[in-house]
Parts: sequence; structure tokens; C-alpha cells
Amino acid sequence: MSSLLVLGGARSGKSHYAQHRAEALPGALVYLATAQAFDEEMRERIALHRGERGPRWSTVEAPLELAKAISAFSWPDTVVLVDCLTLWASNLLLAEQDVEAATQALIRAVAMAGGPVILVANEVGLGIVPDNALARRFRDIAGRMNQALAQAADGVVFVAAGLPLALK
Amino acid sequence: MSSLLVLGGARSGKSHYAQHRAEALPGALVYLATAQAFDEEMRERIALHRGERGPRWSTVEAPLELAKAISAFSWPDTVVLVDCLTLWASNLLLAEQDVEAATQALIRAVAMAGGPVILVANEVGLGIVPDNALARRFRDIAGRMNQALAQAADGVVFVAAGLPLALK
Amino acid sequence: MSSLLVLGGARSGKSHYAQHRAEALPGALVYLATAQAFDEEMRERIALHRGERGPRWSTVEAPLELAKAISAFSWPDTVVLVDCLTLWASNLLLAEQDVEAATQALIRAVAMAGGPVILVANEVGLGIVPDNALARRFRDIAGRMNQALAQAADGVVFVAAGLPLALK
Repeated sequence: MSSLLVLGGARSGKSHYAQHRAEALPGALVYLATAQAFDEEMRERIALHRGERGPRWSTVEAPLELAKAISAFSWPDTVVLVDCLTLWASNLLLAEQDVEAATQALIRAVAMAGGPVILVANEVGLGIVPDNALARRFRDIAGRMNQALAQAADGVVFVAAGLPLALK
Repeated sequence: MSSLLVLGGARSGKSHYAQHRAEALPGALVYLATAQAFDEEMRERIALHRGERGPRWSTVEAPLELAKAISAFSWPDTVVLVDCLTLWASNLLLAEQDVEAATQALIRAVAMAGGPVILVANEVGLGIVPDNALARRFRDIAGRMNQALAQAADGVVFVAAGLPLALK
Repeated sequence: MSSLLVLGGARSGKSHYAQHRAEALPGALVYLATAQAFDEEMRERIALHRGERGPRWSTVEAPLELAKAISAFSWPDTVVLVDCLTLWASNLLLAEQDVEAATQALIRAVAMAGGPVILVANEVGLGIVPDNALARRFRDIAGRMNQALAQAADGVVFVAAGLPLALK
């Protein structure tokens, strides 16, 4: 089935745009959230976002095992939205897992998915070179992941100020 | 009347492009500057920019009261250029004012404007997540403002290396 | 002859895209590298990249004297690829040379080149304002250089996640 990658900066409206695209499709809607509720503030924020998405959506937390979650929740009559891949890469790094291998597994899961999959990721490489080495390393990892995802996706959209620009 | 939002990074040529678009229109040209001259260096820089804009332009400083300034200076035969909104948001924060409410007031003033209004804003969300919390908060505020402005504007252009890309 | 400027963020796939464009043209391929091998790690990395480019390419190091190198290596049957201009600007600053004057000399050399020239540069102005003054100054210099290069180039492409977007 078809896949769409939605790229954008922080507060670019990329998540909102991706949800809008998902809701325009028929069928059930599954939101695969990569955010983890470490504390009370985060739990409240996640609950708020969940409420904003409305009753058509089911939410599943998948901070690490994204490929498995896509395989489990994708069906011909279901749209899966993953938000967001950059946070997932960060979670993988914290768990000392290999982002490149996980990205390849994710791409295979998307290719085998029963229904449409929409992926959201951050563009983080358009600022000045970061001072600290960890931020530089993460920028490299996130950029390489975005390239791999974009190559595999059927469609790629860049969102700025809530407005989409088709890249593919 | 019509409104245009010009988005771009630092030194992307967005201000120059916006001035060019304003000068292509007939009528008087009003430059609403949100920059404040806190010291001598800043005063010199502002005077230099003013000189570069040439004699067709009038310059009005509006670091905070932008909606009022647009209402006061916009006429059917006048083009108003606001440069830049991101600095304005920063000024509002320093003055402990509500950026979201002020943005809504600005959008209403633009909608009611007698003549064309061109707005310039910075895209700041495409780098790595900033280390300090204030920068992260400002990035969120600026991004949300850009989304609201883009939704309301008749046209939106993204400028990179001096070249425009139509978003809307 | 024709010139192409390829802009993009860190790990955006801009170098790969530029090489792909060069390889699509007939003739010999010259890679003008602005990176300098200061230490063993850097030497290994440069050797690795050189190997990846394959046997059609010749590599010439030109950390500072880019205009001269373009004049020397550009011929009607040769494609010259310069990667990257942002690092070159950084090298010039470290050597206390005038980036603006050097950029103008570079633009003249490209205009006089015997064959096609492809230039790669980083977009660095789309993040939050950097904390330190040197980073802010470099961001201004790199942005102004990109504007000058884009104005002079026959074609300009922005690359995100490996995908090109025509700006000119």
C-alpha cells in the first residue's frame, strides 16, 4: 500500500498536516506515538493531544518497536500514522540500539503494510553546526534516516508554516 | 486587500525580496520596522538600512503596536511592509505580552487593511533542538505564529538564497 | 558554460545529488574538495569518500584557492564539482581572508569556466539564533555568500532528504 513521509521543522504544522491527510482517507485511524510519558507533565500533554485527535483515532504507544507495531496494526481498511520518527531515533539512541538497522526494518514493515502508512519526521539540519558533539552526531543520524525514508516512500511532503510542498 | 507572507532564514534575502515585491506595486510605500534602536550601533544600522530603501519609502517604528500601526498607515494607495514579525514576537515576549493574542489582533488588522500588506517572518525551527529552554519556547511561539499568519495570508512565499518558492 | 548551485542542510543528501548530476554529464569529472586533512581520522574519511566516488573522478584539494582551481581544471569536456562552499568560507575566515571578495572572484571564475561547474553549499540560517557571536557572524557570511552564488548561477536546487526542489 502507499506510504507518505511528512517532513518539517519544529512547530511547522507537520503533525497537523499528517493527521489531516490521514483523516481524508476512509477506514480506521491508528496513531502510533513514539513519545514516552516519563513524568506527569508529559502524561498530561499526551492525553491532551489524544483528545484533540478525536474519536476516529486509536492511539498506540510505540517508542521503540515501530516496525512490529506497523506490522500488527496495519490492515487494508486502516490508516497508520507514525509521529514522529525523529523522536523514535532519539529513543533508539538512548536505548543504545542501531538506528540504521532499525530504519531498514521499518522501511520493510512499511513496504509490507496492509494499508496506507503516513510517517512524520523532523528536518533538523538547516541550522548552524551545533556546538556539542552529541547534537552533531544526532543531526547526522536523523538526516541519514530521513534520506532513507524519503527514498522508500511513495510520496514526500515538506511542511513549512502549515503549508505543504511536494518533494516527491 | 491582499496580503503576502514572506518566510525565510537568517540572511536568506527575505527582506530584500519583500521590498522588491512592494516596489513592484503602485502607490506610496510604508516600512513598519519592528527593530528598536537600543544603542548607537543599532541606530547606525537602522539608518543605513533606511538609506538603502530609497526615497519612495517612509519608515515607521512599531516594535510592539503593530496592529494599530497597520490600521493607521494602510490606505488604498499605500503598500505596507512589516519587517520582521519574529523580532516583533521577541519584543512582545520581553514586554511580557501575549504573542498569540497579539497575532490574532494583527491578522484582523491585516484583513481590514485598506491596501496591500507584506509581512516578513523568520523560519527558525529547522535546526537541531536548542540547548536552552527559552530558545525552545521561542521556537514554539515563532512557529505557531508563522502557522497562524500563513493560514490567514493570501499568498505565502519561502525565500532561500534570495530565491522565492511559492507555498500558497 | 552552465553552472548549478546545490543547497541543502547537513546530511540532506546534497553532495550525493550533486555527484549524481555531474555523472549524468559526459566528460571527465573533477572533484574540488575544500576539506582539509588536519589529522589521521580526517585523512581516512577523505580517502573513504574518494573511494566511494569511483574511478571516473579525479580529486583536487582546494581549501582556499578555489577560483584558481576552477580556472585551472575547467575544460569544455570536464565537469567540475566544488564541495562545499560553506566549508571554504569557514577556511577563508580562519585564514583571515575576505569571504565577500573571494566569492566575487569565484563567481567570475565560474562565469569564465570552460565547462559545467556544480557548486555545493550548506543552508545554515533556518534554526534559532545561535548563542555565540561567532556562529551568528558565520551564519550571516554564509547566507550572503549563498545569495550571491544563487544570483549568479544558471540553476539552483534545494535538496531535502535527498530530494531536489528547483529554486531557479
